[in-house]
Formats: sequence, C-alpha cells, structure tokens
Amino acid sequence: MRVLVIGASGLVGGAAADALAEDGCEVLRASRSAELSVDITDPGSIQALYEQVGTLDAVVCAVGSVPFKPLGELSRDDFMAAYVGKVQAQLDVVQLGTPHLGDGGSFTLTTGILAREPIAAGAAASLANGAVDSFVLAAATELPRGLRINAVSPTVLAEATGYHSSFPGFAQVSAAAVGQCFVKAVRGVQTGRVFVLDA
Amino acid sequence: MRVLVIGASGLVGGAAADALAEDGCEVLRASRSAELSVDITDPGSIQALYEQVGTLDAVVCAVGSVPFKPLGELSRDDFMAAYVGKVQAQLDVVQLGTPHLGDGGSFTLTTGILAREPIAAGAAASLANGAVDSFVLAAATELPRGLRINAVSPTVLAEATGYHSSFPGFAQVSAAAVGQCFVKAVRGVQTGRVFVLDA
Repeated sequence: MRVLVIGASGLVGGAAADALAEDGCEVLRASRSAELSVDITDPGSIQALYEQVGTLDAVVCAVGSVPFKPLGELSRDDFMAAYVGKVQAQLDVVQLGTPHLGDGGSFTLTTGILAREPIAAGAAASLANGAVDSFVLAAATELPRGLRINAVSPTVLAEATGYHSSFPGFAQVSAAAVGQCFVKAVRGVQTGRVFVLDA
Repeated sequence: MRVLVIGASGLVGGAAADALAEDGCEVLRASRSAELSVDITDPGSIQALYEQVGTLDAVVCAVGSVPFKPLGELSRDDFMAAYVGKVQAQLDVVQLGTPHLGDGGSFTLTTGILAREPIAAGAAASLANGAVDSFVLAAATELPRGLRINAVSPTVLAEATGYHSSFPGFAQVSAAAVGQCFVKAVRGVQTGRVFVLDA
C-alpha cells in the first residue's frame, strides 16, 4: 500500500507514518520541511504534491494549526484562522486528493479531544475539530469508487511537549497507540468514523 | 425576561419566539425583514441591533444558510460560505452580544441533525453544524458573569416545506416541540449543552 502522510514531521503524523511503515506500507512523508514539501494552506502546493507522488492507496492528514486564546480575546479573524488552518486545509487534502486515490482508497484526517471536551482558551480549536468530525461522517457517504474517509481524534499525547499543563488531569495516550489507530483506519474497512482515543 | 430572537421570521426562530412569548417572556423579534432588522452576515448590523434593543436576559439565534451540493461539486468557496453563513454569523451574535446580556443571561444557538447524521449533498451543512456544537461546549466554560450558552439541534421539522424529500425516513419533530426546547434552554440552568431533538 502506498500511503501519503501529510504532516509527517509532527508528533501525530510521525507516529502514523512510523506505524504504517512498520505495518509494511510504502510511506511517503510530506511536510512543510520535508523533501516532499507541502504548504497545506496553499491548494496549489497540495495539488503539486499529489501530481508529484502519483496514485496512492491512502492519504493520512495530520495537520492544522489553530489559535488558543481566552474566549473574550478570540476575534473573528482568530476563528477564521482556525477554520482555514485546521478545517479548510483538510478539506483541500480530500477534494484535491480524490482523483489521486485508487479505487477503494482512503483518507484519514486528524481531529482531537477538544471537539468533545473543552480546555481553557480552546474554543476555536473545539470549533475546528467539531467541524471536521461532522464533515467526515457526511463525506463518507458521497465519496466515489469505494473511497473511505475517517478521522483519528486522540486526547493529549504522552510524548507531547509544552502543553500538558493545558490538559490538567487528562489521561494521556501514547504516540504508538495513535499510530496504530491510523493503521486501523488505513487498513480497515470502516468509513465515516471518528476514532476516539481518550485513553 | 427580555429575549431577543434573531431569525424570528424563520420556522425555527418563529417557533422559539412563540413559545417564549407564550411562556411570558418579552420577545423582541429580529430578522432581515422585521422592523427590528438585522443582517447577520454583517457584524456592524448585529452591533447596531444590540445597541438598539438595550440590555437583554437572553439571545436566541436561529439563523444560518449553507449550500447543499453533492460532495464532488462542493468547492472551497461553498465550504467557506457554510462557515460564514452558519458558524461565523452565530459566533458574531455571541461575541458582540456578550456585553449586552445581563448577569446570568444566556445564548441559545441553533444547529441540526446533520452534525450527527448525514443526508445526500449535506457535507457542508454537517461541517457547519458540528463546528457550532463543539464551540458551544467550549464557550460555556469561558463566558463571564454566569452567562450560559447552549444549542438546540433538531431533526427535520414536520411543518417545514420543500425539503422533507431530502430526509427520507427521518422522524420529524413539531415546531412546537422545538419551541419548547428553546424555552428549556432560556429558562433553565444548563450550559454547554447541545439539546438534541431527534424525535
């Protein structure tokens, strides 16, 4: 299986890429800084990436940045940045990638616990994650040629640095467990599912 | 209780306004065409409405338009239109309205079944509804002065015209039941809740 992992330099994307490679997939690792370079805020860059890599069996997308600020400081532009950075970017990966997936291929997007559980200063992140979760269940019913789409939605990762204090008391999940969840999404038969990893 | 209902000319907003009035609230009915006129795509218009009506005990927002198209025809602009029309508009109602609510007041937003159940051509609507649902649970934790926020998320309304055929076999809920749910949200103590009316 040829799997493109977009955001492979991040903790989640790296875990997905490692687990898929361990499972025997041919993994193409793309990120802003990788040799397979992509700027996921630019649809032209996503399009160029797809043309460069050729036909794929699966696309994993583990990208997205959102502003974290107290609700009273979240401006209209901040919410828009969350939409553009975490939602629109993943929509572009799906819409532009559909012609490049072989029959029966799959997309696996990344959301997170903030869709269902709040933290301080996380309202824009919650919004963006909830948007992608609901998109996935709808898009699954309309993709052509047996294509599948799911989301992996983990709680905070044990190996993450710099933001555990924002998730007080949250159980943590290992990057390895998150990676296995991507294997399940890519190798499995499910579609329209949000795979919740709340530890 | 002084309650501003934005979108009061629509089926859902009208049901909310009627039920709240029946329950003894002073209901201020705003919509694009009402005497209390508002264009919810224009934050200046929302701001002017709030300044016009003075201090409120509750704001009900039953607005939002999204494009319905097959997934393969939903463009980047279509998804953005869904975000702007259904998500950003309701964010603006909350962010601009916060200073105009008395202590302990509430916002009640409107989402819908498409956040959790797909229909054909509904991917952008699902995305928008899911975004608002997750926003509500996060925003509830950060609003000042005991303000509350909830969403009412009904399935298709029995009295709706023109789109029952898009919801084949879906149980329908009455406008009166939806109206009562807004009363519950406005008069109750809950916050951060999505009130699901799946009939």
